[in-house]
Amino acid sequence: MLTAQLADAKQAGQVLAMTPLAERNALLESMEHLLVTYQDQVLAANARDVDEAQARDLDPPRIARLKLTPEKLAGLRESLAALRQAPDPLGAGRRWQTARGLILQETRVPLGVIAIIYESRPGVTVEATGLAIKSGNAILLRGGREAHNSNEALASLWHQALKDVGWPSALVTLLHDPDRSLAQELMHLKGLDLLIPRGGAGLIQRVVSEATVPVIETGVGNCHLYVDEAADWEMALNILQDGKISSPAVCNALETVLIHRAVKDGWVPQAHERLSPYGVVWHGDAEVMALVPDAVEATEADWQEEYLGLHLAARVVDSLDDALDHIARYGSHHSEAIVTNSYSAGQRFLAQVDAAVVYWNASTRFSDGFQFGYGGEMGISTQKLHARGPMGPEALTTVKTIAYGSGHTRDM
Amino acid sequence: MLTAQLADAKQAGQVLAMTPLAERNALLESMEHLLVTYQDQVLAANARDVDEAQARDLDPPRIARLKLTPEKLAGLRESLAALRQAPDPLGAGRRWQTARGLILQETRVPLGVIAIIYESRPGVTVEATGLAIKSGNAILLRGGREAHNSNEALASLWHQALKDVGWPSALVTLLHDPDRSLAQELMHLKGLDLLIPRGGAGLIQRVVSEATVPVIETGVGNCHLYVDEAADWEMALNILQDGKISSPAVCNALETVLIHRAVKDGWVPQAHERLSPYGVVWHGDAEVMALVPDAVEATEADWQEEYLGLHLAARVVDSLDDALDHIARYGSHHSEAIVTNSYSAGQRFLAQVDAAVVYWNASTRFSDGFQFGYGGEMGISTQKLHARGPMGPEALTTVKTIAYGSGHTRDM
Repeated sequence: MLTAQLADAKQAGQVLAMTPLAERNALLESMEHLLVTYQDQVLAANARDVDEAQARDLDPPRIARLKLTPEKLAGLRESLAALRQAPDPLGAGRRWQTARGLILQETRVPLGVIAIIYESRPGVTVEATGLAIKSGNAILLRGGREAHNSNEALASLWHQALKDVGWPSALVTLLHDPDRSLAQELMHLKGLDLLIPRGGAGLIQRVVSEATVPVIETGVGNCHLYVDEAADWEMALNILQDGKISSPAVCNALETVLIHRAVKDGWVPQAHERLSPYGVVWHGDAEVMALVPDAVEATEADWQEEYLGLHLAARVVDSLDDALDHIARYGSHHSEAIVTNSYSAGQRFLAQVDAAVVYWNASTRFSDGFQFGYGGEMGISTQKLHARGPMGPEALTTVKTIAYGSGHTRDM
Repeated sequence: MLTAQLADAKQAGQVLAMTPLAERNALLESMEHLLVTYQDQVLAANARDVDEAQARDLDPPRIARLKLTPEKLAGLRESLAALRQAPDPLGAGRRWQTARGLILQETRVPLGVIAIIYESRPGVTVEATGLAIKSGNAILLRGGREAHNSNEALASLWHQALKDVGWPSALVTLLHDPDRSLAQELMHLKGLDLLIPRGGAGLIQRVVSEATVPVIETGVGNCHLYVDEAADWEMALNILQDGKISSPAVCNALETVLIHRAVKDGWVPQAHERLSPYGVVWHGDAEVMALVPDAVEATEADWQEEYLGLHLAARVVDSLDDALDHIARYGSHHSEAIVTNSYSAGQRFLAQVDAAVVYWNASTRFSDGFQFGYGGEMGISTQKLHARGPMGPEALTTVKTIAYGSGHTRDM
């Protein structure tokens, strides 16, 4: 059933792949204007979704994610503006001549057609499509049922913007999928170049394990902060607070702090005091329990857990090696941080920790496509192949090698 | 059962990941010397495999792939020498400062542990391991049963070379797998960073569809040559001959030629004459049949077929657009070529054909890691994610982003 939509999208994508950056950026800018002009219509459509969701007793966090506000729309416009200012992910790369004189030119090209399966956030309809357009791809959007009216309103603005510049509407296809059959179909849609699940761990795992089309896994961040014996205590407190408090529900938030035994007696009580106004629950080993009066005892599950909330696992370690072992065992290869003024400890941590991003004296919360200057992100890849870490527009491209010959043959 | 081997390989890989290029190259050079010193032992082990294979009545092409000769061993030494001369795939990449002043440093690092499942060619034991070492990875080798003695002999040379430089032997692990249970286990070995199937289409498809670990698909090459109306006829004949004759059993060989109607009457008979000494069987459409006396009629299956032998599918097209449509429909996204002196036709072909490598006035047979100057290849990726086209040492690496802060926090 989606075969026809995919074919239309492929064809439309070929048009987009040829356009210069300025035209792709003009489309993004046009969308920014439409988001202002039609703000009331978008908010009205969203209000219908929110009303229905409340009538169906959806849980409050999900309704919070569903709800659009003038501020959230302004944020989406800022994302599009940042994306416009980001460099072109398409175009010429390395060029070289082979031993036989053939000229090879690497060229970044769009993947073709990407699809995204997402949940209640309607903002994804703007952000993911912006990234697709910037990188020359057509996109199939399969949003959550509960956001259907909001997504329709936003997709219709994209279609208006496409019409304004004279590009095919098949570049952006919103799929209405009340019975989830289309999500199923997307996972097995031969010819689809990439499928990205964006949402909770359940959705991501279902897609990764079932899909037969190419998928990039995003998401789980069990991020650690290691406070070394040579740490600046105040810096470690700030980085702990930023990592745990500033946005606890996101994947780059801190979940576990590892403290060198040499500093535990002084630093742990200060850390506890720093976090206590926010109601953080400490899950500590025996030594942490002795220093944090209201800590609960950490179990094996705590070391593995991505709390996504105001909980913190805490453990005392004997050495940098112990910290490295703990992270190797429990980390999710997302973002890991050390605070230390020791050159050798810092360098060893950077070299030995196997993660997408490793931080020396900085907060894991910087693992983000905007912070990295990519102009946005499709998510944060925790896999090693293709894209690792924040996925900006370049993660939605591939390489084509162009060979310029003058009758070159290999074995004649 | 492989969990312990994987853990040992991971640990050994961490040692290798830290070594400078000169030491990795020294190991490759040591292996080159050992291949000379122990040539007789390797050939003797191989002779036992060949004897057993003959006793078991294996088919002759498989025995040919199994058999080592002094010339083949010299070729393997040359591969290692080429790999030594190739640039370091590891090390520093882009470095930039974010808007907030955080310094980000992209670094190419090894994937960790890669595994390869291969069939009768014992040379893979040298080539694949060389690529793994060059790129800082540990490797698990699961070769074919029939090559077991040869693989043992070659792996023991690697272990000797590792011992000489003082590196752990767990960097190279040869798996003996007479009942194929280990191949099965590799496909689901949690923590394995990459599995590459190398061999026939059956093996590759089985691994791609069944594996739950990261896999890169290599292989199928249904490569086309389009002879444009503005082609240089002699050049097109040379490129046809090179593509079809020089090594018909490989994936970058030509399978189909598309001829513009304006040149068919003159060019097709010349092409037929050029290929006739080699016994090429033409599978033509009606117009080709009229020009090639001994052609057989092409069926739909011929357009899809990767012959890997002395067969050639041939079709007359009305235009460049028709040729592009044919390639879009039947191509395997591997390597495609146009011969033309028309600037506009050449540029359109390069831009619109969706393949790993597109050739303008050159043979598809250049799609090869040695020809590209990579110092070797793990195969030719026909997927768009991670690696596309010939996979040299860099395809066995990933990126880690290192963040240097001085107490940077995001939201405080």
